[in-house]
Amino acid sequence: MLPAAFLTRLGAIVGDGKLLTDEASCYAYGYDNSRKVFPPDAVVFATSSEEVQQVVRLCDEFAVPLTPRGRGTGTTGASIPEQGGVALSLERMRRILAVDPANRVLVCEPGVLNQEVQDAARPHGFFWPPDPSSAAYCSVGGNLATCAGGPHAVKYGVTRDHVLGLKAVTGKGDIIKTGCYTTKGVVGYDLTRLLIGSEGTLAIITEATLKLTPLPAAVGGLTAHYRDIASCARAIAAIMAQPALPSALEFLDQASLDLIRARHPGLLPQETRALLMIEVDGAPGEIASSAQAIRAACSNDGLIRAEIVSDLKALWAARKALSPLLRDIAPKKINEDIVVPVSRLPELLQGLGELSARYRVANANFGHAGNGNIHVNLLVNPDDAEELQRAEACLDEIFTLVLRLDGTLSGEHGVGREKRAFVAREIDPVTLQLMRDIKQVFDPQNILNPGKMFADPQ
Amino acid sequence: MLPAAFLTRLGAIVGDGKLLTDEASCYAYGYDNSRKVFPPDAVVFATSSEEVQQVVRLCDEFAVPLTPRGRGTGTTGASIPEQGGVALSLERMRRILAVDPANRVLVCEPGVLNQEVQDAARPHGFFWPPDPSSAAYCSVGGNLATCAGGPHAVKYGVTRDHVLGLKAVTGKGDIIKTGCYTTKGVVGYDLTRLLIGSEGTLAIITEATLKLTPLPAAVGGLTAHYRDIASCARAIAAIMAQPALPSALEFLDQASLDLIRARHPGLLPQETRALLMIEVDGAPGEIASSAQAIRAACSNDGLIRAEIVSDLKALWAARKALSPLLRDIAPKKINEDIVVPVSRLPELLQGLGELSARYRVANANFGHAGNGNIHVNLLVNPDDAEELQRAEACLDEIFTLVLRLDGTLSGEHGVGREKRAFVAREIDPVTLQLMRDIKQVFDPQNILNPGKMFADPQ
Ligand SMILES: Cc1cc2nc3c(=O)[nH]c(=O)nc-3n(C[C@H](O)[C@H](O)[C@H](O)COP(=O)(O)OP(=O)(O)OC[C@H]3O[C@@H](n4cnc5c(N)ncnc54)[C@H](O)[C@@H]3O)c2cc1C
Ligand SMILES: Cc1cc2nc3c(=O)[nH]c(=O)nc-3n(C[C@H](O)[C@H](O)[C@H](O)COP(=O)(O)OP(=O)(O)OC[C@H]3O[C@@H](n4cnc5c(N)ncnc54)[C@H](O)[C@@H]3O)c2cc1C
Repeated sequence: MLPAAFLTRLGAIVGDGKLLTDEASCYAYGYDNSRKVFPPDAVVFATSSEEVQQVVRLCDEFAVPLTPRGRGTGTTGASIPEQGGVALSLERMRRILAVDPANRVLVCEPGVLNQEVQDAARPHGFFWPPDPSSAAYCSVGGNLATCAGGPHAVKYGVTRDHVLGLKAVTGKGDIIKTGCYTTKGVVGYDLTRLLIGSEGTLAIITEATLKLTPLPAAVGGLTAHYRDIASCARAIAAIMAQPALPSALEFLDQASLDLIRARHPGLLPQETRALLMIEVDGAPGEIASSAQAIRAACSNDGLIRAEIVSDLKALWAARKALSPLLRDIAPKKINEDIVVPVSRLPELLQGLGELSARYRVANANFGHAGNGNIHVNLLVNPDDAEELQRAEACLDEIFTLVLRLDGTLSGEHGVGREKRAFVAREIDPVTLQLMRDIKQVFDPQNILNPGKMFADPQ
Repeated sequence: MLPAAFLTRLGAIVGDGKLLTDEASCYAYGYDNSRKVFPPDAVVFATSSEEVQQVVRLCDEFAVPLTPRGRGTGTTGASIPEQGGVALSLERMRRILAVDPANRVLVCEPGVLNQEVQDAARPHGFFWPPDPSSAAYCSVGGNLATCAGGPHAVKYGVTRDHVLGLKAVTGKGDIIKTGCYTTKGVVGYDLTRLLIGSEGTLAIITEATLKLTPLPAAVGGLTAHYRDIASCARAIAAIMAQPALPSALEFLDQASLDLIRARHPGLLPQETRALLMIEVDGAPGEIASSAQAIRAACSNDGLIRAEIVSDLKALWAARKALSPLLRDIAPKKINEDIVVPVSRLPELLQGLGELSARYRVANANFGHAGNGNIHVNLLVNPDDAEELQRAEACLDEIFTLVLRLDGTLSGEHGVGREKRAFVAREIDPVTLQLMRDIKQVFDPQNILNPGKMFADPQ
C-alpha cells in the first residue's frame, strides 16, 4: 500500500535491516494484549531522536499513519496500527544514558524495559516506583505513554509522579524538550505530564529523565481473609481512612481465589471468599507498628483471620499470574480497569455481583484496592454470540455504575481503541473538544496513532 | 477606559458591591510582592464558575484583558493587570465544599487560603503538602496557578503532585472539568497539570479537588553549623545521596544568618558561616534513626557541630521571617528562585560568591537546599543606578551559571512578568512555540493574563 518512493526514503533514514515490510514481521507488530490484530504496512526501528524526527517528517509529507510502539504489552490496542501505515518500534532505543544517584535521576531511551531501570537503580539503593505486573516485558516509553501504575501506586503514585523531563518528537516532526533535570521547576507549561498518558497521540517520546526513590529499608506483609466480599470492601475503606499507608493493598474476589486455588492447591484456605494482600514498607522499626495499625483497621465481623506473613513471595507470584491465568480459561475475556473512590468500593462490589447475576456473565475481580482500582474481568465465551451480547450490556451498566460512584473508566490501562467509545461518558463534550484541539496543535495532520483515545466526533 | 456598556454588563453579572472602579480600589488590586504596580480599570469579584464564565465571555466580546488574582502574594508580578482591563479576584470564592477523609480528598473553591485547607484537614489526621511560607495569606488558586512549593517539597513534592482534578473556565469562556475524584485515572489528556503552573494564562480555576496526605506521627529536627559555605554545600549533596530523606532541608548562608542574628540576638552562634535546618518526620521509631543517618551524612571537616533540636519552632519562625526581613533592608532587592541539581550546589554557591564579589553586589542566599532550590537575593539600592546596572549584569551571569549546571530559572515562584525575558534562555524556540500554540487553543483572543510567562516573540 505504501508508495515505493516512501519506502525507499524510509529505509534510507534508518539504514540496513531496520525496515521490515514482509507479512510475517508486519503481523508480529500488529497486535498487543487486547488480542486484536491490525498489521502495519511497514515496521521501522529508530535508534535516535533525529531518526524519529525524520520518520515523522516523512510520514507527514506522505500523510501516512504512524503508530509508536514499545513492547506491545498494552491491553487496550493502543499500539495497534489500526489504520495501517508505519509501526515505529522504539525497542532498539534501549540505552540507559545516565544513572545519577547523587541527584536521584536516571536518564534513558524509551525502549529500556521497566525491569532494566529497576536493575540499574537498585545497586545505588533506589527504585523507580511505577511497577506494572508486566515490568519484565514492557518499555519505559510504554509506561510513560500509558501513565502505567501497579500495586505500589497506593503509596508511591503512578508514572506521572516520577518523571522530571522528556525529549519527544511531535506529529509535526518537531523535537521538543519538556521539564528539567531538577525536582522543582515551574518555567513554562507542564508539557511533561501532558505527554504522559497521551498514548502516542501527541508525540513520540525519545528520552526520559526519571526521578528515582530510595528503596525502603524494610518490607513486611499481611494477609486478611474474609467470609464475604462486603466485609472485605468495608475493610479496604477502613484501612485507607487511617494514617498508616500500606505500600500495596491488593484485593482478590472469590472467582480469582478459585483460579489460584486450582493452580496452586494448598496455598489458600477453602473458606476464604475474599482476600486482601497487604504490604507495608519503611524503616525497620516502623513495619510492626504499621502492620498492627492496618490489622486493627481491617478487622470487622467478616474477617476470618489476618496474619502477618514474613514472606509474601509465593502469594505475589500467584497474584501476578492471575491475568495470564484468566486468559487461559477465557481467552476473550473482557478486561476492565475501573476506579472508584475507596469509600464507594462496598457499593461497587455489591453492584458488580448483582450485574453479574442479572446478565448471567461470570466475572472475576481483583486489583489495586488501595486506589479503588479494580480489574473487572468478564469471562465470556467468544463463540457464544448471545452471551457476548449480554456481556456488552453488562459492561455498559458497569460503566454507568462506576461513573455514578464518582469513578473513572480506567486507572492504568488507558483508552486505546478498546475504551474510546466510552470516553464521552466520562468527559464532557467541551473538555473533550479542548483535548482534540490540543491534539491538533501537536499533530495537525493526525498522523500519530490516528483514531486512538477519542471516538470520531459525532 | 472601559466602555460604559461593558461596565454595566459586568456589574449585572456579579451583582451589587462586586464591581469596583474607583482609583483606590483599582490601585489595591494592581500590585503583588514584586512591588510593581499596574492598576486595572476595574476589579470584579466572582462567586461561582458560572459568573466567572460570564465575565470571561464579556471580556472576550469586548477584547478586554482579564487577570485572575488570588491574594496577590506572588513575587513575579503574575497577578498584575499590566495591560489594564479587569482584575478578577477569586478571593470571595472561599467555600470548602467537601472534606472527605475516607478518600483523602478535600474539594474547595480557589479563594480558600492554603492555611484554611490545612486547618480543615488536620482534625482528620491529614494535611495538604504544598506549604509556601506565605500559607497564611495565599490562596489555593494562586498555589495551583504557580505550582507552589515550600520547605517540605523535598519529601512531599509540590502542588502538581497533590491535585486530583480541577474545574476551570478557559479564555474562550468554556467551563472544563479535568482529572477525576480518584487517585488513579488515565482517561484523556492530563489537563489538570497543564493548568497547574500556568499562571492564569490558560484558564481560571474555579474549583479544586485536592489530594490529602496523612500527617506524620512524629517530627524531629537537627541543625548543622558549618565553618564555610563549601563544606555546607557538600553536606547537602551527601544528605540527598543517602536514603534517609529529610522532610525539610533548608540552607542559610552567612548574609542570611547575619540578618537573623541582628533581629534575634543569641539565637545563632557567631562562628557559624552556613547553616542547615533539617527536619525528619515519620513513625516515632523512625525519627532517631533517620536523624542519625542524616547527621552522619552531613559530617565533614567543615562541620562545627550538628545537634538534635527538640523544638525547631524558633528557628523556623526566624527562617520564615527572612523574606520580609530582607525587604526591610533592601526594599528593591532582586529576588531569584533558581534551582540546580543538588550535586551541583557546591559549584553554584561558589559561583554566586565569585559573581557577588566581581560585580560588587551584596547578596543573601537561602532556601530549599534539598531540592537544590536557592533563593538568591541581590540586595541593591534602588537609588544607585550604577549599582543597579551591575546587579542586572550579575543576574545575567547567574542565569548562565544555573543553566550551565543543568538547572532551571524558577523552582516555585514562576515567571510572571519578572522573568519572562529569560524564559528563552531555558526553553528552546520550538518548545516555546508549542506552548504559545497551546495558549492559543485555550485563549484564542489572548485575553487571559496577556503578556505573562512569555516575552513577545521576536
Ligand atoms: C500480564 C500483563 C500485566 C500488566 N500489568 C499492568 C499493570 O499492573 N499496570 C499497568 O499500568 N499496566 C499493566 N499492563 C499493561 C502494559 O504492560 C502497560 O500499559 C505498559 O506500560 C505498556 O508498555 P509497552 O512498552 O508494552 O507499550 P505498548 O503496548 O507497545 O504501547 C502502549 C502505548 O504507548 C505508546 N507508546 C509506546 N512507546 C511510546 C513512545 N516511546 N512514545 C510515545 N508513545 C509510545 C503506544 O503507541 C501505545 O499507545 C499489563 C500487561 C500485561 C500483558
Ligand atoms: C512572604 C512570602 C513568602 C512566600 N513563600 C513562598 C514559598 O515558600 N513557596 C512558593 O511557592 N511561593 C512563595 N511565595 C509566593 C506566593 O505566595 C505563591 O506564589 C502563592 O502561591 C501565590 O498565591 P496568591 O493567592 O497570592 O496568588 P496571586 O499572587 O494572586 O497570583 C499568582 C498567579 O496565580 C494566578 N491565579 C491566582 N488565582 C487563580 C485562579 N483561581 N485561576 C487561575 N489563575 C489564578 C494569577 O493570575 C497569577 O498569575 C511567597 C510570597 C511571600 C510574600
